[in-house]
Amino acid sequence: MNFCSDNVTGAAPAILEHLAAVNAEPAMPYGADPVTKRLESALAATFERAEEQIASFPVATGTAANALILSSLVPPYGAALCHRDAHINVDECGAPELFTSGAKLIPLDGPAAKLTPAAVEQALAGDWRGVVHHAQPACLSITNVTEAGAVYTPDEVAALAEVAHAHGLALHMDGARFANAIAAVGCTAAEMTWKAGVDALSFGATKNGAMAAEAAIFFDPAHARDFAFRRKRGGHLFSKMRFLSAQLEAYLADGLWLDNARHANAMAKRLADGVRAAADARLAEEPAANEVFIHLGAETAAMLRDAGFQFYPWPALGADCHRFVTAWSTDPADVDRLTAAARGQAAA
Amino acid sequence: MNFCSDNVTGAAPAILEHLAAVNAEPAMPYGADPVTKRLESALAATFERAEEQIASFPVATGTAANALILSSLVPPYGAALCHRDAHINVDECGAPELFTSGAKLIPLDGPAAKLTPAAVEQALAGDWRGVVHHAQPACLSITNVTEAGAVYTPDEVAALAEVAHAHGLALHMDGARFANAIAAVGCTAAEMTWKAGVDALSFGATKNGAMAAEAAIFFDPAHARDFAFRRKRGGHLFSKMRFLSAQLEAYLADGLWLDNARHANAMAKRLADGVRAAADARLAEEPAANEVFIHLGAETAAMLRDAGFQFYPWPALGADCHRFVTAWSTDPADVDRLTAAARGQAAA
Amino acid sequence: MNFCSDNVTGAAPAILEHLAAVNAEPAMPYGADPVTKRLESALAATFERAEEQIASFPVATGTAANALILSSLVPPYGAALCHRDAHINVDECGAPELFTSGAKLIPLDGPAAKLTPAAVEQALAGDWRGVVHHAQPACLSITNVTEAGAVYTPDEVAALAEVAHAHGLALHMDGARFANAIAAVGCTAAEMTWKAGVDALSFGATKNGAMAAEAAIFFDPAHARDFAFRRKRGGHLFSKMRFLSAQLEAYLADGLWLDNARHANAMAKRLADGVRAAADARLAEEPAANEVFIHLGAETAAMLRDAGFQFYPWPALGADCHRFVTAWSTDPADVDRLTAAARGQAAA
Amino acid sequence: MNFCSDNVTGAAPAILEHLAAVNAEPAMPYGADPVTKRLESALAATFERAEEQIASFPVATGTAANALILSSLVPPYGAALCHRDAHINVDECGAPELFTSGAKLIPLDGPAAKLTPAAVEQALAGDWRGVVHHAQPACLSITNVTEAGAVYTPDEVAALAEVAHAHGLALHMDGARFANAIAAVGCTAAEMTWKAGVDALSFGATKNGAMAAEAAIFFDPAHARDFAFRRKRGGHLFSKMRFLSAQLEAYLADGLWLDNARHANAMAKRLADGVRAAADARLAEEPAANEVFIHLGAETAAMLRDAGFQFYPWPALGADCHRFVTAWSTDPADVDRLTAAARGQAAA
Repeated sequence: MNFCSDNVTGAAPAILEHLAAVNAEPAMPYGADPVTKRLESALAATFERAEEQIASFPVATGTAANALILSSLVPPYGAALCHRDAHINVDECGAPELFTSGAKLIPLDGPAAKLTPAAVEQALAGDWRGVVHHAQPACLSITNVTEAGAVYTPDEVAALAEVAHAHGLALHMDGARFANAIAAVGCTAAEMTWKAGVDALSFGATKNGAMAAEAAIFFDPAHARDFAFRRKRGGHLFSKMRFLSAQLEAYLADGLWLDNARHANAMAKRLADGVRAAADARLAEEPAANEVFIHLGAETAAMLRDAGFQFYPWPALGADCHRFVTAWSTDPADVDRLTAAARGQAAA
Repeated sequence: MNFCSDNVTGAAPAILEHLAAVNAEPAMPYGADPVTKRLESALAATFERAEEQIASFPVATGTAANALILSSLVPPYGAALCHRDAHINVDECGAPELFTSGAKLIPLDGPAAKLTPAAVEQALAGDWRGVVHHAQPACLSITNVTEAGAVYTPDEVAALAEVAHAHGLALHMDGARFANAIAAVGCTAAEMTWKAGVDALSFGATKNGAMAAEAAIFFDPAHARDFAFRRKRGGHLFSKMRFLSAQLEAYLADGLWLDNARHANAMAKRLADGVRAAADARLAEEPAANEVFIHLGAETAAMLRDAGFQFYPWPALGADCHRFVTAWSTDPADVDRLTAAARGQAAA
Repeated sequence: MNFCSDNVTGAAPAILEHLAAVNAEPAMPYGADPVTKRLESALAATFERAEEQIASFPVATGTAANALILSSLVPPYGAALCHRDAHINVDECGAPELFTSGAKLIPLDGPAAKLTPAAVEQALAGDWRGVVHHAQPACLSITNVTEAGAVYTPDEVAALAEVAHAHGLALHMDGARFANAIAAVGCTAAEMTWKAGVDALSFGATKNGAMAAEAAIFFDPAHARDFAFRRKRGGHLFSKMRFLSAQLEAYLADGLWLDNARHANAMAKRLADGVRAAADARLAEEPAANEVFIHLGAETAAMLRDAGFQFYPWPALGADCHRFVTAWSTDPADVDRLTAAARGQAAA
Repeated sequence: MNFCSDNVTGAAPAILEHLAAVNAEPAMPYGADPVTKRLESALAATFERAEEQIASFPVATGTAANALILSSLVPPYGAALCHRDAHINVDECGAPELFTSGAKLIPLDGPAAKLTPAAVEQALAGDWRGVVHHAQPACLSITNVTEAGAVYTPDEVAALAEVAHAHGLALHMDGARFANAIAAVGCTAAEMTWKAGVDALSFGATKNGAMAAEAAIFFDPAHARDFAFRRKRGGHLFSKMRFLSAQLEAYLADGLWLDNARHANAMAKRLADGVRAAADARLAEEPAANEVFIHLGAETAAMLRDAGFQFYPWPALGADCHRFVTAWSTDPADVDRLTAAARGQAAA
């Protein structure tokens, strides 16, 4: 009963089946295959965008999607603004710096790993533009769902986009848990992205039911002019591309991506609700999507571990705080076992 | 009937089945899973090496394996020697330069994309060592099977290793078609690599039956000291690593990798034999592994294309030369159809 | 009467004369000249170090010295900790990122652009070491004199070195105004550097009387093993090296470097003392070296500018704060004119 | 009597004097000084170009000029074509690769280190354009005077420019000895550069009388849009910029640059003529500019060395070949002593 992360899960059955289906026929390599062509159409439809108004590129990891997108938006002498706790800043071992050829990430503060327009405005104040001594800010990157489990609404995104664009910065969204954010807000993919001013999206699928598949998506193809070269040069162009594309095709088909995300989010709510009655467990806050942060007494934490539950301590939110992540595959019975155990401990 | 490349093939059934099998259970991410642990043992066994004498890292593409290995062996102010036609030099859009932070590739000549000890010796002659004006050669990289379909024997590899090591260079082998080379020579994996002086190997599986899986292998773990950081930083560390590892595990199990390669090589020989009788087709040379280069008259080439056969022109070997690649999945009947058509054309 | 920076000054007469002197004879290029050899000895003597215990490399700019040193101490997947306002972080347009091949700078806070052991300790807490997701901190970089005009004492440096070394980080000192720091503290160059645990120093001379000359100095030559390659590759190896070396030779000869710095510091004190009596001018703090930060009323600031005094606003210390930098060449009479004008305005 | 290279010379008296002259006054840093402004006008005039049609940037080394220009013309996934013996390819320790973030240099062959349109045309043949597997050629770089002492005429340059531009490549000229080339041909600077299709020039002065000063010159300012950031980020922006600019200003004033080059070239001719009569010395070819390649018997070479003459062996042109470089400061009497000694040896 592993609540460590949504990346401990396997692949959704429909995705595995589709892999087997596209395996039947040989196909030209490097994306010149019919699955990839169909995927491009499916992504355009999902984002309500004409095909010539969107450019999409499957890759296998979220780090690749993020870093390659940044390399298209930020010159080597440039900078990207992001939250101090952003995945690109602390969890990618310098991938953005590698792919941008050494651009800087400028870390900003904000509650729940969210940025505010005011914080961005303040960071961009002053006479940096065109001054050769300073790396030139070229991109604002936000994560939705954030690294602390919070969700930006389309309005919040739009407010950040307004500041970014006013200063000539592009807006990137790291959507490793994009489906969970959409499911949490109840808006469309378009409303959360280009309609709110997002220029490029790392569209995550791995955590939500794929094996290893994400898409780098640009809502202005001009931004993507050299992306294909950068992807190849990064070793991220698959020869048997159809196996990446097929994962994403099945992910989008029949609403699987949203069904999976809704289930994961519902499991988080179920977990939060169930733990609420436990005397020795306290929610750090109501879960916005599929991550639940809980303050646990040391004995309770130990007891849960002994009982076979896996989860990470989350000291950023307090010495006794722990993170529980639910997923597309989380069994409600496991959630109930967990909350029952927590309540039992409290009772004991 | 696609003979363009072995990367037009799908995945071997045993590999797809194993993916489904490891999908059943959740697993800790980033390689902390039992499949990856087992794979490390399987690779050590395959290469007849104690586990502490080998370091292996699954990645998804050959370009990633090559470029990341080179980045571990060559400093930014260094150089790698390779054949002018080497995949790393002409087909990776500068990936080695990206991952090494700008080291140089020094292209050398040699027949059939093979290097000779004399050519390497000559390139290393002179007073370059320690002279700050010159990028410092740090690695010799060879490809086996070569880009022109030829195969290095262990003795030939050993002769190159001797020159490389005498000058302080490590020896890297790009083994995108390593299994085909082993099957062609009939030696062991150990004999072709560390016993002959190879320091690092890009162990390919994608072309020979995997979906997207290769392993970067070091025969001296000291060379791999920072590889894990470089892999992560390159966006090449999979969260659901077990799906990479499982492909390689199934690939090695029960000799699948060699069976597949033997079949591919046999199909190349069948194709060569079958085409020999065609008046308007001439073998450029006997196939060493699974690539057949054939001079075709323009009418014959057009007729074959009209009949549904796909293959690439190969102008490097002459204006009328074409490349036919056979694979683990090549149907002998398709080969026979191809050669019958070629002979028929000749007869017509 | 230009108080904008100490880089508005020219070259000290003794330095210009020495350039003319070494010009008389031809010399072998790239540092194989007698002036460079003598300089190495002079630097070893200045730092009380056996010649085999120190490695020094003249370069023309402070940015080059800083970035090249960092590239020797920090791997591409590494990080350097520094103050948020550090020159390397905000005033070098990403040079450290370029030369380190994309390592990260991690900005920390602290008063007067100084770091405290506690701040460094806190930044290094947690389980980052050896964890592939996180850039690996490899260096702590401090600036002395700091970007806010403050000075670290050898004891303060030693306390930071202790924390850095305990975590496996090297300690770099950006000494763009190193002479001013030494003059302010009254210690030796050795006491401020290797005796306090500094591993590498950017030894500045340009601001204090050279035309364009700095030295990258390593107190453990093992750290400098590949520096010469990195310098050449950065375009920072001068063919007519003796003209760089001669500037530094004259700078060290007869205590010129310290005399110049003492004069600059004395002029700062004279300026501070003189301005103290002005009603509409308030020292932000007592000057530690050769920078004076003064809160000025808007009318006073305008009047001074009209009277021909040049200086920069310094909003980091308050909307009405301005920076006045004195230098080796500052004329006491100009300082007196400035303070008289400030007092006069106050009186008016 | 040092004939090793023109970089063993000192600085011309007029340049040293001008440094002293501009030293008299303080000046705003980083190029915001009147000397730099005047230099821009002087360069525009020298190249017969309106000021808005030329962008020029002083730097201290030829490697910096070359590598920074290339970084403005070639994307990270791009390539520059050059001669195999080009300074950028073999003598800059990978500086172009560093500054371009890993672009490739593609080495071509040609006699006397000169490229022919046919060789360039052949290298650019094939289907590389827009194909993601291949680094995209973006620049052709030639050196004038070449590394083997030969000179391109404006017509030859124009023929190369035509090929380059037809394929969408910019044309860069490494003019480390540009003045010697101009003096040899007798054309104008404009005729040798933009009138012949050169897009960017590394305008060398160091070898021909400066201390350390070159200019990166773009004949289309659009190519230079981000050069200032790249120069700063490379550590090549001097704070006391006027000392770089002053060297170049004096270099251009009163035709000093051409007078110096004419003298150097004349000394090469004198040397060639004088050595012609020596039985044991044979000119490899008539000197085109200021480099003389001479086949010398081993005894003659040893005798000359014993007599105090310094010069390099040049094995690229034969085991017994040596290079003698004359310069702006070469004393005709030294040339006569050298040739007399060579003739004497022959006589002996």
